[in-house]
Amino acid sequence: MNTTRRPVLPPGLSEDAFSTALDRLAAAVGAGHVLTGTALDGHADPYAFTDPDAARPSAAVLPASAAEIQAVLEVANDLGIPLWTVSRGRNYGYGGASPRVRGSVIVDLSRMNRVLDVDEATGYALVEPGVSFSGLYEHLRGIGSALWVSVPDLSWGSVMGNTLERGFGYTPHGLHAAMACGMEVVLADGRIIRTGMGAMNGNQAWPLYQGGYGPSLDGLFLQSNFGIVTKMGLWLMPAPEQVIVCAAQAPDEDDLGPLIDALRPLLLTGTVQSNAMVGNALAIASMISDRQQWHTGPGPIPDEVTRTICRALGLGWWNARFAVYGTEELTRARLAAVRAALAGLPGLELITRSYPGSVAAEAVHPADRAQMGVPSTDLIRMAGWRGGEPAHTDFSLVCPPAGEHAVRQRQLIRGRIEEYGFDYAGGFTMFPRHAIALALISFDRSDPGQATAVAKLFPELVRDAARQGYAPYRSHVAFMDLIAEQFGFNDHALRRVNELLKDAIDPNGVLSPGKQGIWPARFRERTSP
Amino acid sequence: MNTTRRPVLPPGLSEDAFSTALDRLAAAVGAGHVLTGTALDGHADPYAFTDPDAARPSAAVLPASAAEIQAVLEVANDLGIPLWTVSRGRNYGYGGASPRVRGSVIVDLSRMNRVLDVDEATGYALVEPGVSFSGLYEHLRGIGSALWVSVPDLSWGSVMGNTLERGFGYTPHGLHAAMACGMEVVLADGRIIRTGMGAMNGNQAWPLYQGGYGPSLDGLFLQSNFGIVTKMGLWLMPAPEQVIVCAAQAPDEDDLGPLIDALRPLLLTGTVQSNAMVGNALAIASMISDRQQWHTGPGPIPDEVTRTICRALGLGWWNARFAVYGTEELTRARLAAVRAALAGLPGLELITRSYPGSVAAEAVHPADRAQMGVPSTDLIRMAGWRGGEPAHTDFSLVCPPAGEHAVRQRQLIRGRIEEYGFDYAGGFTMFPRHAIALALISFDRSDPGQATAVAKLFPELVRDAARQGYAPYRSHVAFMDLIAEQFGFNDHALRRVNELLKDAIDPNGVLSPGKQGIWPARFRERTSP
Repeated sequence: MNTTRRPVLPPGLSEDAFSTALDRLAAAVGAGHVLTGTALDGHADPYAFTDPDAARPSAAVLPASAAEIQAVLEVANDLGIPLWTVSRGRNYGYGGASPRVRGSVIVDLSRMNRVLDVDEATGYALVEPGVSFSGLYEHLRGIGSALWVSVPDLSWGSVMGNTLERGFGYTPHGLHAAMACGMEVVLADGRIIRTGMGAMNGNQAWPLYQGGYGPSLDGLFLQSNFGIVTKMGLWLMPAPEQVIVCAAQAPDEDDLGPLIDALRPLLLTGTVQSNAMVGNALAIASMISDRQQWHTGPGPIPDEVTRTICRALGLGWWNARFAVYGTEELTRARLAAVRAALAGLPGLELITRSYPGSVAAEAVHPADRAQMGVPSTDLIRMAGWRGGEPAHTDFSLVCPPAGEHAVRQRQLIRGRIEEYGFDYAGGFTMFPRHAIALALISFDRSDPGQATAVAKLFPELVRDAARQGYAPYRSHVAFMDLIAEQFGFNDHALRRVNELLKDAIDPNGVLSPGKQGIWPARFRERTSP
Repeated sequence: MNTTRRPVLPPGLSEDAFSTALDRLAAAVGAGHVLTGTALDGHADPYAFTDPDAARPSAAVLPASAAEIQAVLEVANDLGIPLWTVSRGRNYGYGGASPRVRGSVIVDLSRMNRVLDVDEATGYALVEPGVSFSGLYEHLRGIGSALWVSVPDLSWGSVMGNTLERGFGYTPHGLHAAMACGMEVVLADGRIIRTGMGAMNGNQAWPLYQGGYGPSLDGLFLQSNFGIVTKMGLWLMPAPEQVIVCAAQAPDEDDLGPLIDALRPLLLTGTVQSNAMVGNALAIASMISDRQQWHTGPGPIPDEVTRTICRALGLGWWNARFAVYGTEELTRARLAAVRAALAGLPGLELITRSYPGSVAAEAVHPADRAQMGVPSTDLIRMAGWRGGEPAHTDFSLVCPPAGEHAVRQRQLIRGRIEEYGFDYAGGFTMFPRHAIALALISFDRSDPGQATAVAKLFPELVRDAARQGYAPYRSHVAFMDLIAEQFGFNDHALRRVNELLKDAIDPNGVLSPGKQGIWPARFRERTSP
């Protein structure tokens, strides 16, 4: 790290003005909680595939309260400093804590990490942005709660951050944004609002009723730069009496369509309550083995090697994992319905493991942890699939939960990925009415050829998908404008309305400019078409 | 009807200017679809308890398309005419089609009544605002669909209108707003947006994925005057193999708390998938009998008469109704869990009726129709409870789904209602994480004393409730400002942000001014505190 490099400055600010700004920020949050220079290295994109200098922040501030956020906003509004909000900055694969605008000041909320309330009877927690999934899990165990957390693949990230980005987990509460209820938000002008029933002082149903009186504003703060969420209610699942985790293995690549179509009615009727993660053999192999043990030749892994992997690791070409929950009698009845639905699929193998809901985390099979709400960071191993300096980014398309769509997406994604020399390690996370087609593009960051290939591949995938009527639900910061551009209905009317709302609610354009392609007025000229 | 009364005019418009406006509106939607004078009588509050002249509209227009809505908006913006949007205007008990501002032009969307799309495999319909619940039901039966509709108490109303007002039904899809997915909206300036994935031309997941890329705007159009929704996706339930409808009758008024607490875990775990409607004996009696057959004396019905009613009609003091759905084995397992959960309640009687999911509507017991998704308008009989000219309004508080809260709300509501001489006919509709405490205040509209009493009683209930931390989820138009006023967190910060958004998105303040207490700038001075 070259410590003598010139300091990065917020756009339009002189070194002197920035120095004054830093003094004011230090007064707002305490000098120890303003980071600059090399102390900022933790706030870069850990898996950057383009020049990391292009989006380097000028500083990071770590407020400890809504009042300190208000003080930071005052400085930003006075001086026109773009901020970039992160909860814990663990959005790895999608840019980490990296902002869109060079010189932005990162607002890192990781110090606001209190679980403010847990209600056992009605099943909710009220959390601050810095609470991680593992932190919430430990908190619940610590207070003797029987409530479960729905955990995503990596549990080091923020519960709120993941939820606001529309992330997901693997229990019946896996659609995290659908489980959020009630927010406290600091707006750009420092005004604090509470959404839903929280807008009434002392209302008893703030974290319980997702509606309110009048419009629901909560959705405005998903994948958004309209405010800084400082409190959020999240519904938690009571520990079930019994769980049966199911693994269904289909032998051939062409089994994908029938497998998806067989699973859909189980999800649609709530017979299976978790999502169904349908991963291909390479996706599973990358979680538990190294690529070089299978393939060292040029180009993507050939199909015959995939078949070797299936035999060696006891995998199907497609591997579905899901779970049923309830009383013992209910889980048995659910499993019977699962067996009936899958009976028509030739060569399919169904493996099940039963657990009492009270099982100790250590007694849960590592492959079943997500369905059992047990935090883990095991899957980070996937980033190391290509060896060298581990890195990955994810391509995540929204898909109707139907075989024909899944097959079309697999063809599209696999073809393009292999054209660039990467392996298609991925699959479909099925929910009742949609699926997310995931491709985990692991690369060796120390190989400039691979990084360049990722930077070229991704835009092609986005455009391929858009032509067929599909779009990502989330993406790396580098591709936000590109993806927003694909949403062209009626001359990008939705983006224009988002801009109208943005300008009304954040007139100085200080909050996370460019997030999801929404730019405030002062930045629009240079970036919007 | 006095046809020589002076015409009602939009605020600030002369008779001549209004006449010109009517010509332009006729050019926009066709002369036959502009109503004035006595033709407007169907657009009044059918159950008005205050002077109906105070909120009389000047005209109604019935556009047949988004393009015609755009043309209407152009007239309204040019002349500053306040509009008031209704889907079918059947919001009886909450004001019908009645606007807030005298002289508003009603935009009645009942002619836009096409079911645009039904997808059997993934379970959704795309509907226009004029589609009624019974219309959607008939449409599905007509095309041989096996999809079910979740119907509210009265099926003549608009699916979209009910959903946007956060109404509810009684199947597992009963939280209608949670089942909405994807909207097309005409904004005040005539711009048409599609939310979520619909913002991408040809996207395959518009009615399937509730998220999108960037903020979710859908919530902005619930109980709102931010736009006119012209298309909405709604998730529908696949017909289950089997249903068991359960009626649990608890003998004493004091059984309420334990009954609520016993039902909550069944809902929270999804064991019971419908809501649980817990109605008192008077509520049930008012659906199936006339008050005068029980009580003709002064004042509210005494407890001993309620006990007579229970015996005569075979009711409990509290009567819960809910249902379980699934394969035969699953419904048996669910019912076993229900029996176990209710076993501890002394004197409780559980009555069950089983149906195959394919049962003909005529073969469903009238009391089970709502749980079976069969449309009905039977409950309108409740409005006639007091005899004379039938009318009612509903008091609908949001409540945590816990016995202690239910008991507190019952005390509050019953006490105040009886003080004004009405009967407490109501109960609690329990969802997994909230309940709606309902009191159905039936009155004889031809008795000025009763109408005046309703007008006085309701504000007292609202203030009583707010003092204890409860608020209505919905209300009659006459009480919208009062209720909005109770949401006072941080100096009514949420309302002020709603106003900010309103002014940005509807600068001329033409769309439904005053809805849910949100007034555009030009009306605020005269109404806001």
